[in-house]
Amino acid sequence: MTFSKRHLLGIEPLSPPEITTLLDLADRYAERERTTDKHATALAGMTQINMFFENSTRTQASFEIAGKRLGADVMNMAMQTSSVKKGETLIDTALTLNAMHPDLLVVRHPHSGAVNLLAEKVNCAVLNAGDGRHEHPTQALLDALTIRRRKGRLHRLNIAICGDIAHSRVARSNILLLGKMENRVKLIGPPTLMPAGVADWGVEVYDDMARGLEGADVVMMLRLQRERMDGGFIPSEREYYHRYGLDAEKLACAKEDAIVMHPGPMNRGVEIDGTIADDINRSVIQEQVEMGVAVRMAAMDLLAQNLAAERAAYA
Amino acid sequence: MTFSKRHLLGIEPLSPPEITTLLDLADRYAERERTTDKHATALAGMTQINMFFENSTRTQASFEIAGKRLGADVMNMAMQTSSVKKGETLIDTALTLNAMHPDLLVVRHPHSGAVNLLAEKVNCAVLNAGDGRHEHPTQALLDALTIRRRKGRLHRLNIAICGDIAHSRVARSNILLLGKMENRVKLIGPPTLMPAGVADWGVEVYDDMARGLEGADVVMMLRLQRERMDGGFIPSEREYYHRYGLDAEKLACAKEDAIVMHPGPMNRGVEIDGTIADDINRSVIQEQVEMGVAVRMAAMDLLAQNLAAERAAYA
Amino acid sequence: MTFSKRHLLGIEPLSPPEITTLLDLADRYAERERTTDKHATALAGMTQINMFFENSTRTQASFEIAGKRLGADVMNMAMQTSSVKKGETLIDTALTLNAMHPDLLVVRHPHSGAVNLLAEKVNCAVLNAGDGRHEHPTQALLDALTIRRRKGRLHRLNIAICGDIAHSRVARSNILLLGKMENRVKLIGPPTLMPAGVADWGVEVYDDMARGLEGADVVMMLRLQRERMDGGFIPSEREYYHRYGLDAEKLACAKEDAIVMHPGPMNRGVEIDGTIADDINRSVIQEQVEMGVAVRMAAMDLLAQNLAAERAAYA
Repeated sequence: MTFSKRHLLGIEPLSPPEITTLLDLADRYAERERTTDKHATALAGMTQINMFFENSTRTQASFEIAGKRLGADVMNMAMQTSSVKKGETLIDTALTLNAMHPDLLVVRHPHSGAVNLLAEKVNCAVLNAGDGRHEHPTQALLDALTIRRRKGRLHRLNIAICGDIAHSRVARSNILLLGKMENRVKLIGPPTLMPAGVADWGVEVYDDMARGLEGADVVMMLRLQRERMDGGFIPSEREYYHRYGLDAEKLACAKEDAIVMHPGPMNRGVEIDGTIADDINRSVIQEQVEMGVAVRMAAMDLLAQNLAAERAAYA
Repeated sequence: MTFSKRHLLGIEPLSPPEITTLLDLADRYAERERTTDKHATALAGMTQINMFFENSTRTQASFEIAGKRLGADVMNMAMQTSSVKKGETLIDTALTLNAMHPDLLVVRHPHSGAVNLLAEKVNCAVLNAGDGRHEHPTQALLDALTIRRRKGRLHRLNIAICGDIAHSRVARSNILLLGKMENRVKLIGPPTLMPAGVADWGVEVYDDMARGLEGADVVMMLRLQRERMDGGFIPSEREYYHRYGLDAEKLACAKEDAIVMHPGPMNRGVEIDGTIADDINRSVIQEQVEMGVAVRMAAMDLLAQNLAAERAAYA
Repeated sequence: MTFSKRHLLGIEPLSPPEITTLLDLADRYAERERTTDKHATALAGMTQINMFFENSTRTQASFEIAGKRLGADVMNMAMQTSSVKKGETLIDTALTLNAMHPDLLVVRHPHSGAVNLLAEKVNCAVLNAGDGRHEHPTQALLDALTIRRRKGRLHRLNIAICGDIAHSRVARSNILLLGKMENRVKLIGPPTLMPAGVADWGVEVYDDMARGLEGADVVMMLRLQRERMDGGFIPSEREYYHRYGLDAEKLACAKEDAIVMHPGPMNRGVEIDGTIADDINRSVIQEQVEMGVAVRMAAMDLLAQNLAAERAAYA
């Protein structure tokens, strides 16, 4: 099989053929999702544990639905109220869960690198559901699948990513994936929200929406964390919307058939105009959510196959 | 099939034959509940999402058990801690979940009408688990099933509903259902807890328990929300209990074989005397809970059949 | 069958052959846990409800995994946010859940005896997941299984239990079980953390680790509740660690092949040195967690068999 990884910790370790293998499988799952009997058996008899150290209704729900549809026993651990509070270390918590023999561990954590650290300590497959400002690989994969379905390809596209790049693991994983697949990636946002060292990332950087969006096939808006607004990063919500919020006028700078994306949840009237978000001819925001389940099914299916093969080899 | 609805949003849209169809099916599920193997397959391969914007341990548990026993993948979304808090609108949240292709969406919301609004935006079947002061249809249906099993019929009964009518969606759905089935419905409570316009509801109104309970086959007590007690609605818990709390003396005004109902959770010593609540010759409170699971199984089964038929027609 | 109980409320009511039957079955489940297809069918079609009135991520997860692997429909009730808060009594809550026909009820409660009380009111099988300072039977059983697997037997062993004995249901259940199986049990800890009347328990009591650990085959450390530290029970964390924390020097007093146990979550550097906790030649802490799932599967399997037999007899 082309997909040879033990974990899905980020986009960085994936090769282009691995990305394509995963998206191809996700495409097939996406078709099944639209029928009444959504059950497959790829994870039958397996245990999936979702460990979310940060709240995320939508991402956790997406992984939970994906696992259940594949036949796994799925458990959600509310880590905010757990023994972590009783002074247990992250590693002890992970080792404890590991001793219960999960097959798949889905982890979200506020610290960059925490998920990689955890993956070294357990003997199941680990999926990164977002760690600090580091990576959020399933988000980039679902974005890629949505783009590929709408544009018919995933290379040589002109893609603009707009907003708070500096604090966004979504942006980081997307930049990595879109770069690997040989697209032209442009980042647009105020200089205060650009990461240090962005000049070395192989992307173009703009602080003006009109110029940055020119020729774009895909306009990817990022969520503006409201906690940034008090931090000196942006002058005000209103000023931000005026300069960087996606409205009809700014979108007119992109290609006529450009699609609009957002990872959700949206702040309507802050980073995006509600009318554009709801425009079914431009916005693919609902399709991103739909592809999210399919991509997570594909990722867990592939990792489970590798895990079973590895166990068979040692048996 | 007699039951032709796409959603279960309230009692109001249901016809008497639809109510009877649903109760007949629930009766059959109630028998199965009492055995060890409780599994059926009506929802096999389907996804049920419980979206509770208000806490409700018992109603959520009842829907969860019902769905799991029918073979659905069931997910509970704790909406209080969700992205709604991050500024997302109700509709965006609903559309996001809808994009994950649930088949059944069970929704409780503090605002009257919120569930109907949501049902217009999604393409799965929606069940109202209580919205503001509007409706709580499965509660009325489980009450109806309990009455029918105990009294042998669901028409021409003399039924008293007692307590805080004004703020109660339980009362409203029961009044609608019992009226449709041609029963005599009497409301008893202090004038401060009677809804405006009650004169037009086709029911009798009393502010005296002794007179209102006369000839009653069924005495349905409502929960007194403790938050009403500070609001000028009632003078004190003690005074309320004295005038409207169901005790042996007041119950003696009803028929000798009258049954006592309460939707729970009970405030013993406020709206009902503990001895009466525990009297297995009069109280059917546990049976109401039991019928709750059966009624929800029946409702989800019927809606799922309609959904599958609709999908087949479009396929 | 040797195991004749209707509930698992504590170690006290169990006979030595019942303990052995349960551990033998758990041993078989432990082997299955290590494979990819972990599913059995002992609880197929049954409903398991976890009612945790105290938070416990690990114990609840262990019961949840155990039930799901046996094919049960498993529901977690977050009792802290439930109708208990709305003034409902424990018994009313239990009767409500009972009316939904669960087959297995797993209960943790802060009050000693609450689980026994509850078991009298329901007609399903009840498992005590810890009640006050009373019992935590599945913890003692998983400790016993771990010991038996490592030492090859569960009798005539020299076992030291160290730390906060007075407040520990884990200690109490272990003392009962290890006594029934005819082991030599020694309790070690400061006199302020010894229960009143310990002289009558048939155990030896030490306040000095070096003397108490002499000849020990098994060193069982207890968790020190941080809330004890302000209560006059111990002078300071540092002083406690100095006198009672398990480090290499103290462990050298036990037998050379003594195993080290801890029920978790650990306070590293308070009751146990991190290096010893991580020493795979001595510490069996991860294996305890692993055996926890197996023991809970065995207990629920045996109780479900008895429940089904009882129902068949009445049918």
